Amino acid sequence: MTGQDSPADPRRWGRRHLLRAGSVGVGALGVGAASVGLDRSLREDRNPADGRSATGPSPLLGEVTVPFHGEHQAGIGTPAPASATFLALDLREEVDREGVLRLLRLLTDDASRLTRGQPALADTEPEMAAQPASLTITAGFGPGLMERTERPVPDWLAPLPAFGIDELEEQWNDGDLLLQIAAEDPLTVSHAARMLLKDARAYARLRWLQRGFRRSPGTQAPGTTMRNLFGQLDGSANAQPGTEHFDRVVWIPDGPFAGGTSMVLRRIRMDLDRWDEVDRSAREQSTGTRLDTGAPLSGGTERTPADFSLTSAYGFPLIGEFSHMRRARGVDDGEHQEILRRPYNYDIAPPPGSGAISEAGQIFVSFQADLPGQFLPIQRRLDELDLLNEWTTPIGSAVFAIPPGCAEGEFLGQSVLE
Amino acid sequence: MTGQDSPADPRRWGRRHLLRAGSVGVGALGVGAASVGLDRSLREDRNPADGRSATGPSPLLGEVTVPFHGEHQAGIGTPAPASATFLALDLREEVDREGVLRLLRLLTDDASRLTRGQPALADTEPEMAAQPASLTITAGFGPGLMERTERPVPDWLAPLPAFGIDELEEQWNDGDLLLQIAAEDPLTVSHAARMLLKDARAYARLRWLQRGFRRSPGTQAPGTTMRNLFGQLDGSANAQPGTEHFDRVVWIPDGPFAGGTSMVLRRIRMDLDRWDEVDRSAREQSTGTRLDTGAPLSGGTERTPADFSLTSAYGFPLIGEFSHMRRARGVDDGEHQEILRRPYNYDIAPPPGSGAISEAGQIFVSFQADLPGQFLPIQRRLDELDLLNEWTTPIGSAVFAIPPGCAEGEFLGQSVLE
Repeated sequence: MTGQDSPADPRRWGRRHLLRAGSVGVGALGVGAASVGLDRSLREDRNPADGRSATGPSPLLGEVTVPFHGEHQAGIGTPAPASATFLALDLREEVDREGVLRLLRLLTDDASRLTRGQPALADTEPEMAAQPASLTITAGFGPGLMERTERPVPDWLAPLPAFGIDELEEQWNDGDLLLQIAAEDPLTVSHAARMLLKDARAYARLRWLQRGFRRSPGTQAPGTTMRNLFGQLDGSANAQPGTEHFDRVVWIPDGPFAGGTSMVLRRIRMDLDRWDEVDRSAREQSTGTRLDTGAPLSGGTERTPADFSLTSAYGFPLIGEFSHMRRARGVDDGEHQEILRRPYNYDIAPPPGSGAISEAGQIFVSFQADLPGQFLPIQRRLDELDLLNEWTTPIGSAVFAIPPGCAEGEFLGQSVLE
Repeated sequence: MTGQDSPADPRRWGRRHLLRAGSVGVGALGVGAASVGLDRSLREDRNPADGRSATGPSPLLGEVTVPFHGEHQAGIGTPAPASATFLALDLREEVDREGVLRLLRLLTDDASRLTRGQPALADTEPEMAAQPASLTITAGFGPGLMERTERPVPDWLAPLPAFGIDELEEQWNDGDLLLQIAAEDPLTVSHAARMLLKDARAYARLRWLQRGFRRSPGTQAPGTTMRNLFGQLDGSANAQPGTEHFDRVVWIPDGPFAGGTSMVLRRIRMDLDRWDEVDRSAREQSTGTRLDTGAPLSGGTERTPADFSLTSAYGFPLIGEFSHMRRARGVDDGEHQEILRRPYNYDIAPPPGSGAISEAGQIFVSFQADLPGQFLPIQRRLDELDLLNEWTTPIGSAVFAIPPGCAEGEFLGQSVLE
């Protein structure tokens, strides 16, 4: 464990330095995962203007690493890789403040090794650590962890208020400690999750585990927005990492969690069968966007700003008042909030004997600097009215406080908990 | 549907022609997925001798296609892609022979379109079909389907005999119709599975569905053998597609299923926790291979043939008599059988409240020309004695007859069922 060596102030990491180092400098094409010993990511390498590499052979995807240490935790402003496991732990009753700190030192040490492609200290399958594949490990704290460490619980760090659309199942809610483990390769994610869970076991019980996927690396051109299982382009409106706008949307500016953020994770079941019964035009009306291009129904392309004032020849708004996009944006309430969405798909075997042909949906993940000021108003509006609610049901919900990143020799959350 | 147009004899496809066309011509590096309009696969493209592409920009992985039509079905001798869904259907009681043939025509039409990157005829999300990502769709028949179509059931097409190691759960066993849907991209697999299930729904109920994964494309160099969740290199000894040896191991030489094969699919739970308690040497003894390189304990590299006669200074065989490899090979029984293994990993959320930290294992898939002559002796020996049984438990088991491939205008299984 490195927790004791040369503790350093994370604030010594200047933002400029980090931008240059690439750990938050993610460009408009969604590229920019820094790689060890390489000054370009594989994705950049694969698609230069002339279609050839300017720097020689592309590295294998398995070899690409994303820096673990830094001002912010990785796994938020870094590109979302293909595979992710989200898991929540509940601290065992007998674990006290010192126990929690030991657990965090242990997990930080594991994470700093695994993300570099090195085995965890007690790794029983060291060979499986050799392909980090852009692995990021991100930790978040639930209210229980703050209490156990005798630190104040931020007032927003609590279960979300009950929404009328919710049909929450206890098995997917809450938790004391969140780990988001994500990489381009699912075997890498499995191995990392297992090593972290083994080390955590003496301190905590697994509360829930959710595995999600996005497109495999290289399936589409870099920067292509992912489709969700409804076939919708999902995430077009996200702020671009590396911009001031992104920093304002995502990072908490001051207080103990400065440089951190808040995370909302909701398991949203999607009723694919009933969605399929609706014609294409009604499906587009429900979101306010075109299914093929992702463009707003007011026209243009995926990136064209929506024009909510445009109406049809009959005087109806092109982007309907009940549409998901119009409701989310707060157009008719004189409000405007933004969050960073980083969702994953899930698609698992339906319960045996249920007669269903699918059990699928989205692991909705959002990050925002100000949960009550950004996330809640959006969610309240969508709860009140959103055509998409017809086919989606939140079945799990959790909120976590994401501490800032840590420097080499520190542990995750040290500046918050010490 | 194209089932009615220009039915053709699949035997008009000469083997030489197909080898040239690439549909079964898979080279020693595990490459060779044919691609539309491209004479090399992306994987070949990525690693030429000088590290640069000789043919210009690599295609996106999403655009690569594997031919659906041919002498053999795709998905057996073609490289195993990153993501696969295996699903078994049970025919509804009221579906007669003509109903089954209609279902197969429908599924064949869907499969021939989806594998080309075109939407299925009634595709509700046509945009999601646009990235075939080496999609293959392989069909297999259970005994129920043969009976329903009033055709003789091959005597080997039945549940496997009960083995002492089995703890089968009814929810994972058997089925009338198997679909293996595999692609480099999990979203492609999800969409294809859903389209096939929607079209099948009027004819059949979903019996079980199993999702599996392998390394993401590009994670490791082409031809690298995958590790399973125990960290073992798995599949080193497989016959190489495109060789006579492979053809002998895999394809049924005559009878109604000539050009087809038999498929065994077993869900094998792996007890990762107890595996971790064993030291490295004992784990290597249990398989007879080194964990790091996959080489036999008699020495050499992953590809070095095992020397079962070598002994240690104390006179014990280097590859122990109870080891998985020695038992599987039949060394001490004067036997030698081979099968083609094409396994996938699974790693799902453990049942809520179980206290477990993982629910993982392997979707074991094997293909062999002669199930009683090749698979059964191996399985009997491993049931009798195999150190690995200590940490593995078969919890599901199914056998299917894989009909040969079909030509354009035919449907899957036509030569078997008409």
